[in-house]
Amino acid sequence: MAPTPDWVKQLSPAGPQGHELLAAERATSNIPVEKLSELLYTKEVLKRKQCILDVLKSEKVFDKSQNYFGGRIDRFETALARAKKLRNLRLKHRWNLDEYRTALEMISEPGPYGLHESMFLITLREQGTPEQHELFLKKAENYEYIGCYAQTELGHGSNVRGLETTATWNSQDKTFTIHSPHLTASKWWIGSLGRTANWAVVMAQLIIDGTSYGPHPFVVQIRDMKTHEPLENIHVGDIGPKFGYNTMDNGFLLFNHVKVPHIAMLARFSRVEPDTCKYVRRGSPSLVYGTLTWVRSTIVMQAGSVLARGVAIATRYCAIRRQFQDRDASEWEKGENSVLNYTMVQIRLLPLLAATFALHFTGKAMMNLYSENQKKMNASSGNADASKRGAGPEETRSGSDILADLHATSCGLKSLSSTIAAEGLEVCRRACGGHGYSSFSGIGPWYSDYLPTTTWEGDNFMLTQQVARYLLKSARSVASGKAPMNDTTRILSQYISRADIGCAFDILSRDSDIVDAFAWRTAFLTFEALKHRDEHKKPWNDLLVDFYRLSKAHSQYLVVKNFYETLQSPATVSQVDSETLGLLRKLFRLYALHTLEQEASEFYGSGAITIKQISLTRTSAVMKLLKEIRPHAVRLVDAWAFDDWVLDSSLGRFDGKVYEDMFYRASELNPLNKITVDPFPASEVLFKRDERAKSKL
Amino acid sequence: MAPTPDWVKQLSPAGPQGHELLAAERATSNIPVEKLSELLYTKEVLKRKQCILDVLKSEKVFDKSQNYFGGRIDRFETALARAKKLRNLRLKHRWNLDEYRTALEMISEPGPYGLHESMFLITLREQGTPEQHELFLKKAENYEYIGCYAQTELGHGSNVRGLETTATWNSQDKTFTIHSPHLTASKWWIGSLGRTANWAVVMAQLIIDGTSYGPHPFVVQIRDMKTHEPLENIHVGDIGPKFGYNTMDNGFLLFNHVKVPHIAMLARFSRVEPDTCKYVRRGSPSLVYGTLTWVRSTIVMQAGSVLARGVAIATRYCAIRRQFQDRDASEWEKGENSVLNYTMVQIRLLPLLAATFALHFTGKAMMNLYSENQKKMNASSGNADASKRGAGPEETRSGSDILADLHATSCGLKSLSSTIAAEGLEVCRRACGGHGYSSFSGIGPWYSDYLPTTTWEGDNFMLTQQVARYLLKSARSVASGKAPMNDTTRILSQYISRADIGCAFDILSRDSDIVDAFAWRTAFLTFEALKHRDEHKKPWNDLLVDFYRLSKAHSQYLVVKNFYETLQSPATVSQVDSETLGLLRKLFRLYALHTLEQEASEFYGSGAITIKQISLTRTSAVMKLLKEIRPHAVRLVDAWAFDDWVLDSSLGRFDGKVYEDMFYRASELNPLNKITVDPFPASEVLFKRDERAKSKL
Repeated sequence: MAPTPDWVKQLSPAGPQGHELLAAERATSNIPVEKLSELLYTKEVLKRKQCILDVLKSEKVFDKSQNYFGGRIDRFETALARAKKLRNLRLKHRWNLDEYRTALEMISEPGPYGLHESMFLITLREQGTPEQHELFLKKAENYEYIGCYAQTELGHGSNVRGLETTATWNSQDKTFTIHSPHLTASKWWIGSLGRTANWAVVMAQLIIDGTSYGPHPFVVQIRDMKTHEPLENIHVGDIGPKFGYNTMDNGFLLFNHVKVPHIAMLARFSRVEPDTCKYVRRGSPSLVYGTLTWVRSTIVMQAGSVLARGVAIATRYCAIRRQFQDRDASEWEKGENSVLNYTMVQIRLLPLLAATFALHFTGKAMMNLYSENQKKMNASSGNADASKRGAGPEETRSGSDILADLHATSCGLKSLSSTIAAEGLEVCRRACGGHGYSSFSGIGPWYSDYLPTTTWEGDNFMLTQQVARYLLKSARSVASGKAPMNDTTRILSQYISRADIGCAFDILSRDSDIVDAFAWRTAFLTFEALKHRDEHKKPWNDLLVDFYRLSKAHSQYLVVKNFYETLQSPATVSQVDSETLGLLRKLFRLYALHTLEQEASEFYGSGAITIKQISLTRTSAVMKLLKEIRPHAVRLVDAWAFDDWVLDSSLGRFDGKVYEDMFYRASELNPLNKITVDPFPASEVLFKRDERAKSKL
Repeated sequence: MAPTPDWVKQLSPAGPQGHELLAAERATSNIPVEKLSELLYTKEVLKRKQCILDVLKSEKVFDKSQNYFGGRIDRFETALARAKKLRNLRLKHRWNLDEYRTALEMISEPGPYGLHESMFLITLREQGTPEQHELFLKKAENYEYIGCYAQTELGHGSNVRGLETTATWNSQDKTFTIHSPHLTASKWWIGSLGRTANWAVVMAQLIIDGTSYGPHPFVVQIRDMKTHEPLENIHVGDIGPKFGYNTMDNGFLLFNHVKVPHIAMLARFSRVEPDTCKYVRRGSPSLVYGTLTWVRSTIVMQAGSVLARGVAIATRYCAIRRQFQDRDASEWEKGENSVLNYTMVQIRLLPLLAATFALHFTGKAMMNLYSENQKKMNASSGNADASKRGAGPEETRSGSDILADLHATSCGLKSLSSTIAAEGLEVCRRACGGHGYSSFSGIGPWYSDYLPTTTWEGDNFMLTQQVARYLLKSARSVASGKAPMNDTTRILSQYISRADIGCAFDILSRDSDIVDAFAWRTAFLTFEALKHRDEHKKPWNDLLVDFYRLSKAHSQYLVVKNFYETLQSPATVSQVDSETLGLLRKLFRLYALHTLEQEASEFYGSGAITIKQISLTRTSAVMKLLKEIRPHAVRLVDAWAFDDWVLDSSLGRFDGKVYEDMFYRASELNPLNKITVDPFPASEVLFKRDERAKSKL
């Protein structure tokens, strides 16, 4: 196409300019943005981010300007180039794991080394013997082997026990035969496998002498190290395009009786004795239990910032965008109104803004609790340290009780938080009106890439069964008077002690009562479910919907409680001024009361609150909070400190140059505009002039 | 990549095969699928569909197998080829508009003639004079001019009055100057404009002698008819990639003082007198009012089948997919359970299945009502026919009252139904677990293309204000005793007449009481809103959230009422057997009671039902309906009669060959597998072998 003409270049948006409007927004609030950023991230992390951002911006391969235009193959090619460059930068700058992860987060696209760097390395490290570390892990850490983790199959997702791939022990030559007996045995969805990996950890049913010992991990070479073509009797490839995540080569993998040596089975926890052909367990991989809890807590914390991106983009754009006059505006107020002033926009965005803080603080609290407990358990177990320090079995048990509690709550919170983030991003996208549908909004592509989080690390619906099972168990132990001490048993016991006299929570004037109302509802639903299961003997399957509701209720309680406690903690109080703290408490109330109102019928049903209270919450309390928070909205999203380079959004630019950026991308960057078409149906010519080829020369 | 090896081709899925599982599903129900299809579509339409499908399938250009793989430019090129072919097929087979639309629906992708064939032609036809028809419309109908409808601007979406583009009358040479004074004046989102159109209807502020007369339509040539390059002082192009709709070239357009002749202004309803330079109105475009109602009713009806695609795909796949054993299964029931047997899956899919029927019947009823009313109005207005037939002004007014009612209800229903369809599709996608994320599921791409429906023809949030305004007006007229007779005033009057004595709806045993409970809630919320606005004088902006809820409540009532009435109507009763009718009534109850339960607190709040009733609805009635409907699920989705070619989904295949098809597409069709990469970070080579170029030779 012709370059943008000069007369177009001279145009600017009508009316007040974006940067003026955002400046005015920022002037309506005194919130110290930097202090708040430090509360969220710490000073140290903010500094780290800036250093790494500078490095990334200076490398041409990380330039994002064509990200939204490329087809699958182009995008994959770029992602591979970025993965290689990033690995080399890590070596050059000696980045530690945190720094490397920060870089990945700012690049913000899945890459072909993703599963090599996570599950492949982790599994080799955690489940390999020292000999296997020497043989596999070292090379993997040096990127001489590029690997993946092949567990899920075409016919089997969540249910690992149902995997079909077999690894049969051959006693004659001390080998295993890896085999895919059916089409549904094909490994599927395996990240980094489609085009990139030449090695894989393959989960397969171990079979010795006709007996199955369940799924075990095997290290298998799948591609030639030079030609990079698949090895014989291995069929491997990319599974095709997806709703998002298209810079990653999720793959499939089939084996036709492929032999691997004895050393291929990762043997830290179990092995086949090559001489006796006996299966031997040594220790149990109980650490994995803890790792999963840690991974889920990370998802909870990330959910806050994942959602915050969408909220930041939508809030800034809605502050700039003007549509219609206020119906009640007087003559002299003429001129279109900022979209963010409409309560219908506020009710969609501001509770999500509150949720970003709620989820972030909850994740952080979970991770702290987890670390502290790990320390305690490490100290009291293992060698004789424990008895030396006077710690008895009591303390050890209490540590593992807390871990069990953490495990269950991390399941529920993973489910709730990733659902809030995913669905919240779509709410943000639609709040941007028509322009939200453009890729340049930056929300759609980000949402599409985030969506799998609702399915992996435990499907968000499946996980709720684990939470319910734990709550039922806790309720039974409370009823029997032999409950361990943790927060879950505490709220169940409190409910029991007051069940006969009821409750009276003053949710509209006391914040702690809001937390108690959420706890009450959880306990009520727990004992209801217990009655259905234990007394009425209802089938498990008939209770799944109740269990889902129960898990959601419990997880909402946890978020509300953690948000509340964070704002009460001396650490927080000492870090921000009282005005900021006051605003954060309003965000707490908005999040909690808005949630309560959404779930009103469960709160009534449990007797936690009255109909009058819910009506006041809806028509008065929430609406008042929206008004009070509105002037601070832009500064609050500023506190999340996303660099424009990271957001890659026309609508969410810090400087408010929304329309200039939309126009620039369409008019200057869009490759479709290099094509001239013949539009007439009578002609068979489609593209009259195609400058794509030319431009590549 | 290497072709799929023979040993892979010989593999089949493990366990019971997909076609066996679907056959078993179909055997658990006696529902006459064909009869039900006829009830939905009529025999005639089904036959038409089949004829057109046969034509499309025989044309290579409509082959869908590469649809999910192509990048933007390739997909646009294919879409253009398809648009041309379809136009030529229409001529060849003499398809009427309905037949042509059926073909478009089955191709299921937006195309570059989209806006030419809709708004460009419609506007020329409805707003042009006979002279303009001769000059523009004829050529447009012959595809000698390819056009678009340029209204929305970069800075202005919903608010047409705020458009910035100007058309200034030049009295000296009897021309208009079309001009874009600012960057935000750039036309934006204009379908078919980006690369295809050479003409446009441009909405611009008419200015005569310094006075603005508001937005008017102008017919403007924008590209050269031979070179197809933009004309001088016109900057036009494609706006870039979007969340979906990428086969359409939505465009931007800027004018730098471009002169057009007097004839360019479409002058059926208003014109500039060339000699006196006076602005003259002649008649008002009131027909447009009716057209919008018609367009929205179409959206309501389509919402049913749009959603039904997702429900059909997810239902079939969940019937085939097996994961885990039932926890309460006895030893001899071992083997994995169909996912559709889990209540947590049923509660997500079956109410949506019910919604497909509810929306379809509601849309159909709306369109019938609209047609009947149009007939009546046409008969009683215009020439002297009315008085001849003895119809007085009474009947005319009642016709326009009904039209006003239809207009308002179509706004609310458009908002509700497109939201249900869009969000429902995402629920279906997630219900498919991991594979739902693959493009081969067919749900994601369909969802992405449908999403704009929630924004266009009135943003789903904005529209609710119109509904609320109408309900408030109706409530005022009821209160004053001067209400016109229509369904809205009827339910408001009934509420008033019982407000002092309350109500007692037996929702769990009488279907008509369910409808009445929904009506009661609407009326309650209407008078609440009226009190806030008229008595408490609350600002309009403070009430937007209440208005949204009110519109939603009213629209839910309308869906429930129309579904109920359709099943009561003699036409329906005569078309299906009593067992099928019984099942449809269960679907009615599931839809209505599930909705009621979701909105429980509003139903309590209004006094329509008791807490005991809602608790029974939740734990007993809804769960029982799921159980009863479950065996018929596959047959019910079969009744929607989507051909596999139309669905283009591995998961939703009629024959259940889910895994074979997933595998075939990945292994045989996926172009990424033609690339061999160098995965090592130490090497700068990315693609070792790239067979894309070769394969194109």
